Amino acid sequence: MEQLSLANPVFATYAIAAGIMLLKGVAMSWQTVFTMMIENGGFRNPEDGRKTPFNPKPHDRQLEPNPRVERTRRIQMNDLENLPYFFVAGLIYVTTAPPLWLAQVLFYGYVVTRALHFWAYMTAQIHDVRAMLWTPGSLIILFMAGASAWAGLQAAF
Amino acid sequence: MEQLSLANPVFATYAIAAGIMLLKGVAMSWQTVFTMMIENGGFRNPEDGRKTPFNPKPHDRQLEPNPRVERTRRIQMNDLENLPYFFVAGLIYVTTAPPLWLAQVLFYGYVVTRALHFWAYMTAQIHDVRAMLWTPGSLIILFMAGASAWAGLQAAF
Amino acid sequence: MEQLSLANPVFATYAIAAGIMLLKGVAMSWQTVFTMMIENGGFRNPEDGRKTPFNPKPHDRQLEPNPRVERTRRIQMNDLENLPYFFVAGLIYVTTAPPLWLAQVLFYGYVVTRALHFWAYMTAQIHDVRAMLWTPGSLIILFMAGASAWAGLQAAF
Repeated sequence: MEQLSLANPVFATYAIAAGIMLLKGVAMSWQTVFTMMIENGGFRNPEDGRKTPFNPKPHDRQLEPNPRVERTRRIQMNDLENLPYFFVAGLIYVTTAPPLWLAQVLFYGYVVTRALHFWAYMTAQIHDVRAMLWTPGSLIILFMAGASAWAGLQAAF
Repeated sequence: MEQLSLANPVFATYAIAAGIMLLKGVAMSWQTVFTMMIENGGFRNPEDGRKTPFNPKPHDRQLEPNPRVERTRRIQMNDLENLPYFFVAGLIYVTTAPPLWLAQVLFYGYVVTRALHFWAYMTAQIHDVRAMLWTPGSLIILFMAGASAWAGLQAAF
Repeated sequence: MEQLSLANPVFATYAIAAGIMLLKGVAMSWQTVFTMMIENGGFRNPEDGRKTPFNPKPHDRQLEPNPRVERTRRIQMNDLENLPYFFVAGLIYVTTAPPLWLAQVLFYGYVVTRALHFWAYMTAQIHDVRAMLWTPGSLIILFMAGASAWAGLQAAF
């Protein structure tokens, strides 16, 4: 059986988890856009302060950092620091043929802890809560990356 | 037939589109470097203001933000916010065995709209133009991510 | 033989190199966290200045940029600008069935030059040294991306 095909239950699990995290990651761009529209500010480009159909009443402070927009940008950045590594580590990990239950724990565990991390970041919980919800996801990536490198070493030498 | 192999026309289409977007994404790093050289500024590291063979006449303002360098950095950042999600969503989407014509529309459509988005960003078109050229690519990723998660759910349960 | 399986020595090489770079990339997040703890500052979120078990003695300057934390953030950002492109280019490149020796040169060469680039960035070597150690990795990605797009074109048309 091909490992990187939906006929493999481990890969199907990966497709579900990665698909959900992709939707979440891309949704952050939209959240940043909507927050800029609601706040009518937090823009970054000089040309974004021009009068246009989408920006009928421009004002000087639109190009200043806006606290709510900055928060969504930081959450978006946190995703960029984590999700691509999850996607790649997860994909290679599938080729190591892990037991299905373990893959489910790792992939779905990642999705759940990242969802909680998003809630904590969005609602400005104290750092300690955010850190506790970020750590499991990071350890899951490290475990899968280590298992992938180890399986590669065993196969190659 | 293996799905993730060049014998699969859908994967071959993915390899073309992803290869082009990889060249484009990496080219942004080079564009940032060349813009810093032309502007002789926009550096970010304290040590970049030292006198070296590449920086024979250092001056104090080299470490200040430079508008042209900042623009290439924002475009580079926009790629980082979008391309990795496209690469992963596209790869998993290939395993859902979509019709070739649809894969071609999605993959090549992404390449074309991102090229136009780059032109709009580089030439500082108004926000409305940039937004209209960013949106199709983002929707393409969302569609492929949703289709991947859905196919995974159907295969797993 | 499946190309994207550990039975393929080229993919096993990729799994080793990508696994190491994943560990390195994720380790940068931890280094940023540890540097913030040691410096007791360089935080980014308003809520990170609150008194908590992890931050028993908050002070006003904790939210100001800290030079050491900013350096680890720049290194982390440099990884984000490069590693995802390496992971994707390398994976597609495996499907072009390159000779094993060439794949080893490219994959292990990437790992070695990125390790040296990290050393140069961390110890604040002059820009010229950092640039010389960044360039080979970038050229490796460009070569693999070009070879992938080319192989896709040959397969599709």
